[in-house]
Amino acid sequence: MNILGLARHGLNTFEQVAILCVLFTAFFSLWYAWMLRKTVLKKDKGTEKMQEVWNAIRIGADSYLTRQLRKILPLIGVLTVALFLSVYVVPASREAVAEFGEKNALIIVAIGRTIAFIMGASFSLLVGQLGMRMAIQANVRAASAARRGFNEALSIAYYAGTITGMLTDGLGLFGGTIIFIVFGTAAPDALLGFGFGGTLLALFMRVGGGIFTKAADVGADLVGKVEKNIPEDDPRNAAVIADLVGDNVGDCAGMAADIFESYEVTIVSGLILGLALMAIDPTHSLKWIVYPLIIRAIGVISSILGTFTVPIWERFPVKFLKAKNAEEAMFRSYEVSSVNTIFWSFLVAINYAHDWRLAMLTSIGVGLAVAFNPLTSYFTSTRKAPVKEIVKATKTGPATTILSGLSVGMESSVWAVVVIVISFIIALVLYQGSGATYVLYAVAMVGIGMLSHTGNNVAMDSYGPISDNANGIGEMAWHDMDDEETRKARQIMADLDAVGNTTKAITKGVAIASAVIAAVSLFASFITDVGRVQMQLGVKEVMTAIRVSDTKVFIGLLLGGALPWLFSSLSLKAVARAAGLIVEEVRRQFKIPGMMEGKVKPDYARAVGISTAAAQKELIPLAVISVLMPIAVGLILQVEALGGFLAGIILSGQLLAVYMANAGGAWDNAKKLIEDELCDLSANTGKGSERHKAGVVGDTVGDPLKDTAGPSLNPMIKVTNLVSLIAAPVIVKYSRMSLGVIAVVVVLLAGVVWAIARSKREALSLFEEDKAGKSKAQPVHKATHR
Amino acid sequence: MNILGLARHGLNTFEQVAILCVLFTAFFSLWYAWMLRKTVLKKDKGTEKMQEVWNAIRIGADSYLTRQLRKILPLIGVLTVALFLSVYVVPASREAVAEFGEKNALIIVAIGRTIAFIMGASFSLLVGQLGMRMAIQANVRAASAARRGFNEALSIAYYAGTITGMLTDGLGLFGGTIIFIVFGTAAPDALLGFGFGGTLLALFMRVGGGIFTKAADVGADLVGKVEKNIPEDDPRNAAVIADLVGDNVGDCAGMAADIFESYEVTIVSGLILGLALMAIDPTHSLKWIVYPLIIRAIGVISSILGTFTVPIWERFPVKFLKAKNAEEAMFRSYEVSSVNTIFWSFLVAINYAHDWRLAMLTSIGVGLAVAFNPLTSYFTSTRKAPVKEIVKATKTGPATTILSGLSVGMESSVWAVVVIVISFIIALVLYQGSGATYVLYAVAMVGIGMLSHTGNNVAMDSYGPISDNANGIGEMAWHDMDDEETRKARQIMADLDAVGNTTKAITKGVAIASAVIAAVSLFASFITDVGRVQMQLGVKEVMTAIRVSDTKVFIGLLLGGALPWLFSSLSLKAVARAAGLIVEEVRRQFKIPGMMEGKVKPDYARAVGISTAAAQKELIPLAVISVLMPIAVGLILQVEALGGFLAGIILSGQLLAVYMANAGGAWDNAKKLIEDELCDLSANTGKGSERHKAGVVGDTVGDPLKDTAGPSLNPMIKVTNLVSLIAAPVIVKYSRMSLGVIAVVVVLLAGVVWAIARSKREALSLFEEDKAGKSKAQPVHKATHR
Repeated sequence: MNILGLARHGLNTFEQVAILCVLFTAFFSLWYAWMLRKTVLKKDKGTEKMQEVWNAIRIGADSYLTRQLRKILPLIGVLTVALFLSVYVVPASREAVAEFGEKNALIIVAIGRTIAFIMGASFSLLVGQLGMRMAIQANVRAASAARRGFNEALSIAYYAGTITGMLTDGLGLFGGTIIFIVFGTAAPDALLGFGFGGTLLALFMRVGGGIFTKAADVGADLVGKVEKNIPEDDPRNAAVIADLVGDNVGDCAGMAADIFESYEVTIVSGLILGLALMAIDPTHSLKWIVYPLIIRAIGVISSILGTFTVPIWERFPVKFLKAKNAEEAMFRSYEVSSVNTIFWSFLVAINYAHDWRLAMLTSIGVGLAVAFNPLTSYFTSTRKAPVKEIVKATKTGPATTILSGLSVGMESSVWAVVVIVISFIIALVLYQGSGATYVLYAVAMVGIGMLSHTGNNVAMDSYGPISDNANGIGEMAWHDMDDEETRKARQIMADLDAVGNTTKAITKGVAIASAVIAAVSLFASFITDVGRVQMQLGVKEVMTAIRVSDTKVFIGLLLGGALPWLFSSLSLKAVARAAGLIVEEVRRQFKIPGMMEGKVKPDYARAVGISTAAAQKELIPLAVISVLMPIAVGLILQVEALGGFLAGIILSGQLLAVYMANAGGAWDNAKKLIEDELCDLSANTGKGSERHKAGVVGDTVGDPLKDTAGPSLNPMIKVTNLVSLIAAPVIVKYSRMSLGVIAVVVVLLAGVVWAIARSKREALSLFEEDKAGKSKAQPVHKATHR
Repeated sequence: MNILGLARHGLNTFEQVAILCVLFTAFFSLWYAWMLRKTVLKKDKGTEKMQEVWNAIRIGADSYLTRQLRKILPLIGVLTVALFLSVYVVPASREAVAEFGEKNALIIVAIGRTIAFIMGASFSLLVGQLGMRMAIQANVRAASAARRGFNEALSIAYYAGTITGMLTDGLGLFGGTIIFIVFGTAAPDALLGFGFGGTLLALFMRVGGGIFTKAADVGADLVGKVEKNIPEDDPRNAAVIADLVGDNVGDCAGMAADIFESYEVTIVSGLILGLALMAIDPTHSLKWIVYPLIIRAIGVISSILGTFTVPIWERFPVKFLKAKNAEEAMFRSYEVSSVNTIFWSFLVAINYAHDWRLAMLTSIGVGLAVAFNPLTSYFTSTRKAPVKEIVKATKTGPATTILSGLSVGMESSVWAVVVIVISFIIALVLYQGSGATYVLYAVAMVGIGMLSHTGNNVAMDSYGPISDNANGIGEMAWHDMDDEETRKARQIMADLDAVGNTTKAITKGVAIASAVIAAVSLFASFITDVGRVQMQLGVKEVMTAIRVSDTKVFIGLLLGGALPWLFSSLSLKAVARAAGLIVEEVRRQFKIPGMMEGKVKPDYARAVGISTAAAQKELIPLAVISVLMPIAVGLILQVEALGGFLAGIILSGQLLAVYMANAGGAWDNAKKLIEDELCDLSANTGKGSERHKAGVVGDTVGDPLKDTAGPSLNPMIKVTNLVSLIAAPVIVKYSRMSLGVIAVVVVLLAGVVWAIARSKREALSLFEEDKAGKSKAQPVHKATHR
């Protein structure tokens, strides 16, 4: 048999059928997404007033993404050419020659890598864009459905989230599988291109979306909630539309692209390490590559199965299994997915791969995703000690509130490392006897397992901004209504929103942890890949290890460790500045007579414009730093030190990201806990009290930490790792300092310095420049309804 | 010739004389300290009222240090025994047998290490205690002298600081030299004991002092400055004495012990690496050990020379060299020291060591200490962009103030790494051809050079709390006076205080950087030392590198990187909680009728008691974590992973420490900048404005970051490194998991968990327990005047 020409790569019949099934699963999940989309779109969009608000959000979000795409396209173009040419630095690999013949190997690999890069970038973009558009379609419909009942509103929001989840699964699985089908054992080059495209786009979406959303959110809150004492989403606040747009471009588009990229990168590094194992495994078994693909397909099926069971749990006949509420039903369905995946992974591992340890790794991964729930939840839940301690600290003002939140964030980061370390130790114990490459592969398999249920995760995560937006639309469209039905609908929306906050926080924890596991897998690929390249180039001393005891490597470690700090510093500064501009804008508009009384409609577009300018301005600089730094470090300190650099990035990145995410989450919930108290200003409790104000300061500080700086590190860690992998052949080849190399290094460093300086420029001037220079060219926002 | 029996170790005549001179220099600097002490003590202590305030400070500080000592003595006792026994794990080293004969080698080394440990601990304690007592003697005298004129007050404060500086120099140099004289090439074991004793005590002084001072400071400010709008050091504030005591136990005792320990550790690692080099250097030259000792002696002489020139610069005849003010005179004298050290180091390097590169390393070190001034100053000075940006952020409230300060701190940390990396690269380039151990030695020599002028640094640093306290004594003793003379004296005190803030900030930057360089030197010693131990134990596979590409080592790196975060989290939490308790206490006392009007004297002792309890409670847990974690990691993951663990600690520790220190410094100065504005509440400028309140929140958050958590990391990094070095033989010997080893590991981990849980307990309950249980045993504070 020779299905899809797979026999050429040495696959036996079972393996050929399995790969076909994997491919089919990918298409199936895309089809499922399409079907869900139709279901959601059938629902009504509510009153004209609701659609008016909704349209403003939709246009703001669409125009932001369009402008973002226009901004990054030139850089993508340059990188596409660079990637094509990069293949020519080293002779074609043994595997590529075997697959495509001596003559064609190089050009095919070059074209393959380039197409894969574009494919990765487009998929990441698609997941982000379509996911966000879907969320926007869903929010107004969920708001409208809330007038009819809780369950309908919930299912609209959850199914819309599931669509994005299925897109992530489908496109990620399709990309990895098709590359393997075409390139077989020569796949690594193309896989790297695919991974790089995905992570780079995710970086843009995360950074841009993160800055946009928090500049608007912080700005809106500082004036609205703190100074004017008006509720969130009050239509008199000029930044309220920007805030709602931000939820979509940040929490939806940014998050979806980010998780897609982790999903993709784990499969990329899993396949690269699998191919490395295949080369040294005495039986040259293809199982090291086929197993992870099968697991991924099983995961997708489990995810779909899980989403099917959501409506069942609230009506389940056995009492102790019956879900008490929507939240519990979602978690129960997640557990169904987990059990299913673990069961099938053992079946496949034992009967096909004849190695039960592989299934253990998958189970550890699945378990890790589950284990992060209680961990994140302990440090950020309103019911646990850390948040209560922050609430206690609000009694003595904002300073102690901040201090105690910082402390909570730091501690949570320590335990997150401990959990990850435990999973590594198990992987180590399982494969210790087999050799170092096996252990590295084992770590990558934990990553594969961990991201099995990306479908559910993305669904639960996207659900958050959808219900948040629905709530906002309700607040704005119904602000002058106070009948019984509206009050009930409002309560439903608020409940949905609360569930969304929990699911969002939990999936964020999983996203960061999986990002680190994915980065460690890439780091592992780096180690095996550099050796391969060196042998190909005939280097005498092949790198077998990355020794931090070597001063050069230690220097690399220090520099790498510093990079996430630079990145966070720049993105925080961007938000702080942009939020300051928004505050001044909103304050200015509130001074317009009649505004506070709600008689004049604010100019929402200006706040959207300021957020957009602030976000756009960071895109190129931060991407340039992530792409150029590893190459510069590699050329100056050479390839082993580059390994140290990557280790440093992973270490600092993990610690910083979790610290920022959980500190932010804890402050957020501490504020909520105070808001839930009885409002009594003399006892200093509840909304409007001094304690509440301290809580709001904490929440506001936490917002950009948890939604901009923290999450931006996820794709950044992986972009630097992938760039290092791709640039490794160049670095190995030009390991002697010549005048040419020095010139290139100087240019690279100049680029980094330019990027830092550019990022530190004020956003307002850019916004003004933008308006002055391009006012004619600005797209006319037609209020088209679909 | 055979001076002091040095010929036995193979020293030639020049070397013997040189070592004698080094020893003499150590004594000379102690004598100089004694002479300065007499000069300071001759001055008058001012009015009775001033002495009353002063006595309260003195008694509070003394009793704190006494209680601290009592608390830590049991642990010191346990460790002394453990250290004695630890020598018996491995057979005596070749060098020890050569020095003391087969029979006596082990017992002599064991006794030597134990005595060295006690010596290190006592010296560290002495520097801290005597330095602090001297500062307290000086503060009231400086306050009294301020009524006579600026110059006399300044010189009292500066000379008192110099006393501590000379103690640091003298004791550090004496300890290292005497160990070398006694043990010769067998010195490493004793040196490790000496280093460990010093760092451990410094850890206690830093952690305890840091928590004490900031709990009191934050608590006092939150109520006094923010709520009641009364000035700092107002006698009506119940926490004001605790605040002044805190300056002494934190900024004086803690800082002095910390710098002493860095000074000591660089010489310890310099000698260990020197001995390692001597073993592999074909000529077996002793210059690798003698050179650093000579450089240290030169540094001490230069420091003394520098302090002599301070009074000259303001009267210097050449105009462009003449110092405009006291601050400039101090910096000018520092430059004199630097030039002198560099000149003599080249003379010695070329004529004695025949290797000019050694002098280059010294110069880089000296340069590094100087280079950190502009760096720290850029990020924390009121005249530069970062602080101005924070000031701008205060316009939009405390949240943006915090965000922009966090961002400044993060960025500063990145550039500090870049500066350190540049110095490493130069060391690397100089010795690259000679081999890895030479490069590691070169890095240690940079550390030796960097800490050459510890005398000046400590002098400039101690000057800070002295003038701060003098100011406080003036505020409290003169609060009802308003004659011409008092007003003038007040202005003089304020000016002195301002100079102190600058010198303190700058020396803090040097302290952190030198801590990291010292830690890297220890890390380098670890690498060479483990190999030595393994060969002694006959291990087959001797560790030649620390490979982070190995999963075990990577796990070590992750755990190590997490440790400084845990440490910071716990110390921040301690401060936040204790400050909360102080706030409640001060609020309670303000409610007492007549308190606000100044008719009732507050109960200062209670605030001192709360701060003391909060600080005491952290001592044992944090020390236990630092001591047990490396041993546990080493036993579980083995010695190479322990190396990864250390690398992780250094990386995270450096980044976190600088981040916290500079964020805190920047907030502090941003607040000052606002206070210097014209007070106009309608324009939102100056003291009492909303912007000022935001600035105070920033400053309050920054206080424990820059004075507790950040500086505590310095000794912590080195304690873990030294424990690893000392425990390495045990870890190597028990590298196979047996039941016994597992039992030990479980006990160690249980100890760590106990320590974390203990640290997280509330401080108040301990304070109450303390009062209830020991009220009878409490020392009677007799107000003895010396």
